[in-house]
Amino acid sequence: MNLNFYMPTKVIMGEDCILKNAGLFTTLGKKAMLVTGANSAKVNGSQDDVIKALESVHIPYIIYDKVMSNPTVPCVYEGARVAKENEVDFIIAIGGGSPMDAGKAMALLACQDIKEEDIFLGKFSEQVLPMAFVPTTAGTGSEVTPYSILTNDKAQTKTSISTPKLFPTISFLDAKYMDSLSLTTTINTAIDALSHAVEGMISVRASVLSDALALESIRNIASCFEELQDGKISRESREKLLYGSMLAGVVISHTGTTAVHSMGYSLTYFKDIDHGRANGLLLGGFLEFVEKSKPELILSMLNAMNLNSVKEFSTLMDQLFGEKEEITVEEMENYTTISMKAKNIKNSSVEPDYQVVLDIYKKSFGK
Amino acid sequence: MNLNFYMPTKVIMGEDCILKNAGLFTTLGKKAMLVTGANSAKVNGSQDDVIKALESVHIPYIIYDKVMSNPTVPCVYEGARVAKENEVDFIIAIGGGSPMDAGKAMALLACQDIKEEDIFLGKFSEQVLPMAFVPTTAGTGSEVTPYSILTNDKAQTKTSISTPKLFPTISFLDAKYMDSLSLTTTINTAIDALSHAVEGMISVRASVLSDALALESIRNIASCFEELQDGKISRESREKLLYGSMLAGVVISHTGTTAVHSMGYSLTYFKDIDHGRANGLLLGGFLEFVEKSKPELILSMLNAMNLNSVKEFSTLMDQLFGEKEEITVEEMENYTTISMKAKNIKNSSVEPDYQVVLDIYKKSFGK
Repeated sequence: MNLNFYMPTKVIMGEDCILKNAGLFTTLGKKAMLVTGANSAKVNGSQDDVIKALESVHIPYIIYDKVMSNPTVPCVYEGARVAKENEVDFIIAIGGGSPMDAGKAMALLACQDIKEEDIFLGKFSEQVLPMAFVPTTAGTGSEVTPYSILTNDKAQTKTSISTPKLFPTISFLDAKYMDSLSLTTTINTAIDALSHAVEGMISVRASVLSDALALESIRNIASCFEELQDGKISRESREKLLYGSMLAGVVISHTGTTAVHSMGYSLTYFKDIDHGRANGLLLGGFLEFVEKSKPELILSMLNAMNLNSVKEFSTLMDQLFGEKEEITVEEMENYTTISMKAKNIKNSSVEPDYQVVLDIYKKSFGK
Repeated sequence: MNLNFYMPTKVIMGEDCILKNAGLFTTLGKKAMLVTGANSAKVNGSQDDVIKALESVHIPYIIYDKVMSNPTVPCVYEGARVAKENEVDFIIAIGGGSPMDAGKAMALLACQDIKEEDIFLGKFSEQVLPMAFVPTTAGTGSEVTPYSILTNDKAQTKTSISTPKLFPTISFLDAKYMDSLSLTTTINTAIDALSHAVEGMISVRASVLSDALALESIRNIASCFEELQDGKISRESREKLLYGSMLAGVVISHTGTTAVHSMGYSLTYFKDIDHGRANGLLLGGFLEFVEKSKPELILSMLNAMNLNSVKEFSTLMDQLFGEKEEITVEEMENYTTISMKAKNIKNSSVEPDYQVVLDIYKKSFGK
């Protein structure tokens, strides 16, 4: 039995957990920079809670709220410059995957001089600002991973930078911030998290422990399938989705993602298809491929989802995602070529070749 | 849904994991002190592996091998003095719970001036030497907890000192060191670990995540019940027991232990009954008590053990532990008085009163 486990982030989950644990901010430093997008953190109450908590413990702060979806390299360099200029001690990232991933890169770049063209080379020192994270979607798991996923224009895809120092110091999980999420975003993010757990089990780096956490994640997310279909999401289900996505983040911190993520990145980069939706559209086809070599592995996931077959799973995804985007075979061939170069492909315990990847794209988009 | 999770120790499990990861020692410091007991680490090969690994990366070391079972306060102060005198940078504790618990206290006392009479007051600063831990039994879980449990002569029991800084930096889990364990020690330590997982689920601090980890632990430990009864333990089962005990350690890091541990400490202090055996003898009686208020909780544990009733569990424990020690009712009354003062008692979600505790003692020892 071989396994590694390392996840040093302190996770605190519960209603009003930020306000109840305001004192923890004082352990991170004396001045904070909030990193967030333009809108959602203001609408869902998370930014207000953070500000109230900071004020209650007399910590001054600045706000950097210019993080876009699928953050770019220039964006994280600008944020890091602002952090340095304002001499902040720690980063509080609030939002979905984009602000959290950007926040990690800023925490690193605020302490280390790395040229923009070298950011994806992975040569980092230990210096990183402390980080407190507040996820406001239940999908990315970024609040418990050492990954910062940025748009890589040179490679025309998304690429992760990673070092163990990028684990956030603290993550606050409060499902109330998800009450205002649209159904579409709720579905996209939930299926992103599901994809993390499922891909974690298919990874060459899966262990008995990452599998146990993945199954716990899958059980919790799948217990919300019915509400996702009905479109009425209770707070209890919001909590299960948030718990499940956090667990799935812990899983991929150990296993990485696999072919689905590398394939999905092209759909996001070229077609602007939401990341979770992209994964969800491809997942059924990939599971069908893996099932041929590892039927028992797929069966354990299906059992955790209370489903009888991959076909049933794919039908469910089709129902959740509705009409699919139009993609030509030529485009798919291009995406396949790009995917085959991604490191996640080789991370699959059943590794698909060019033809398999192309076939999954075709099947997923009805070609 | 409320939960906290924090377990910053890097866990590396696998055959020869120390030799394969010798480079990690260089991240801890330039000079090491091995903390161990007089014998077992020499017999089971763990000390040799650590020394080989240290020599391969040119790290000098000293050896402090005077840790006794149920380590005393004078012992950990002496070890800390030796560490300071020899200017070591980090501690490598090798052994069962005693060397690991002692190693933690030494890592702390080597950096902080605390009077002997104040050691149990729990007032510590952040300074602690880095620690690498090598469990050579599968029971205590100390390799992933922030607890150091020491003999407290003033209170005539064992008392834990605890701070988040006492989590080991790295733990190496290699089941081969357990091949030479006697059947008695294997049983005692396995049931200690089981008791951690079970008590974790009964704790007032249990969460959905600690429960999931506890059930995974219980399933793995219980899958070895037959081999424990037969007396022939395969390497595969050794690994499951080690994995299960590590998980149970993660559980009690979050939940603490409950009444069983506080009751067991008296049996160890006054009757020199092994810690795991003490817990195992009391566990059935405590589960019977909890079942009256929380039948579903107990059912989930029994399902994970593939058992039908608490009675079946108690019969199994009786078979594993054989003839019980002779204890008078007067002694039990004294132990009950001491137990009722322990903080673990109040940590039980179904809190037993004086009479219940006394009855569990009586039932457990056939009075």
